[in-house]
Amino acid sequence: MCQLLGMNCNTPTDIVFSFSGFAQRACEHADGFGIAFFEGRGLRHFVDHLSAENSPVAELIQRYPIQSKQVIAHIRKATQGRVALENCHPFVRELWGHYWVFAHNGNLVDFHPRLHAAFKPVGDTDSERAFCWLMQELAKSHAAMPSVDELTRTLSELMPQVARHGTFNCMLSQGDALWAHCSTHLHHLVRQHPFGVARLHDQDVEVDFAELAQPGDRVAVIATQPLTVGEPWVAMQPGQLLAFVDGLPRP
Amino acid sequence: MCQLLGMNCNTPTDIVFSFSGFAQRACEHADGFGIAFFEGRGLRHFVDHLSAENSPVAELIQRYPIQSKQVIAHIRKATQGRVALENCHPFVRELWGHYWVFAHNGNLVDFHPRLHAAFKPVGDTDSERAFCWLMQELAKSHAAMPSVDELTRTLSELMPQVARHGTFNCMLSQGDALWAHCSTHLHHLVRQHPFGVARLHDQDVEVDFAELAQPGDRVAVIATQPLTVGEPWVAMQPGQLLAFVDGLPRP
Repeated sequence: MCQLLGMNCNTPTDIVFSFSGFAQRACEHADGFGIAFFEGRGLRHFVDHLSAENSPVAELIQRYPIQSKQVIAHIRKATQGRVALENCHPFVRELWGHYWVFAHNGNLVDFHPRLHAAFKPVGDTDSERAFCWLMQELAKSHAAMPSVDELTRTLSELMPQVARHGTFNCMLSQGDALWAHCSTHLHHLVRQHPFGVARLHDQDVEVDFAELAQPGDRVAVIATQPLTVGEPWVAMQPGQLLAFVDGLPRP
Repeated sequence: MCQLLGMNCNTPTDIVFSFSGFAQRACEHADGFGIAFFEGRGLRHFVDHLSAENSPVAELIQRYPIQSKQVIAHIRKATQGRVALENCHPFVRELWGHYWVFAHNGNLVDFHPRLHAAFKPVGDTDSERAFCWLMQELAKSHAAMPSVDELTRTLSELMPQVARHGTFNCMLSQGDALWAHCSTHLHHLVRQHPFGVARLHDQDVEVDFAELAQPGDRVAVIATQPLTVGEPWVAMQPGQLLAFVDGLPRP
């Protein structure tokens, strides 16, 4: 199974700590990885067919503290689609003059929606088909970028239509919000004042956020499985969709 | 003025040598850089608002020999649009299930085409507007991905319409071919058997391609100004459009 990692903050924050723990999980998920960082409307998008454990690109990300309010990362264990760069998540498209980023964990069976509009898959995964269909249906539902709450309403109608076909844990962002949809496994955590110490599950690394963060900072981390011990991770429920804005989940 | 670098090959090749010379030119073009590599249908896309001289991302590219048949790189000196990640070239869109990559050097005056279809700029440069317009018009001209020669015919009608508005040196690729359009400055070079020694203009670095290349290898390099001494660079003519396929230019 693939693993997802998302971050949504009220102030640009680097993901070095969380990504370091996440990358450790790549040994069992060795079919590529990817990560996308919004910087304002701009986007940095890194994908590699190498495992996040060995990839020089993953090494760069652990060394270069890119400041971002929205990050989506994925390590891949291929279920559908070859091991190839075009099948690495996250996927990116442009809609209404904004980049949209999507990553998926799960497996969709017999999911071949009609893609009759401007969004076509480049690779051959069920995940990219689902993303193209979501983009197509969003484009039909709104003429220009709606509010986050309106988008959440539309997505709460669209996501279950995909989820009927199988496991659909996914993350989506257009730079202002990060939506997480849970079919089976997704956990989230809000880090805010008073900050404490967190220790990575997968590595002997500890961080005291009280020393690093400002009192007003707030960061939501969303991941397939909790990345740290000593922090109050919350399990999402099957069928649940949350929009994270400024480091807080909104139903 | 910005600088462009493109590479088109008949076999996947790394661009480390050419990019090293190109990155040296970043001191006068310090408003960001970007590079995109096709790997089959997949794409690696790196942008940074830092200069290619100082960027950790540029350093990665000089260290990690990514093998690609189509590469487009750009170092930016802002003329229109703020210094921001969303204004860094190359730009990427998807059309007909293929990624398309575009970079531009020049300045378009009063270029505000009607963008009524699925391609909208994310940033605020004349260049991204031109790219969105080209994508829109290509999408209207063909129902699915046509041959390279058909695309060349369509582009030879579209490019002059943009070039009327100012300087339009640009490169475009969809993974199979690389189109170069010259308004003022673009040079190309074909490296093939018998291979010789090339020395970078901007750095005391020499490479003997006879030691590195196989007899059947062929690489076209396209750049704003020649990158090496001792090689037969050809200046493109104003208004000229060339499609590079398998390391050779086609008119």
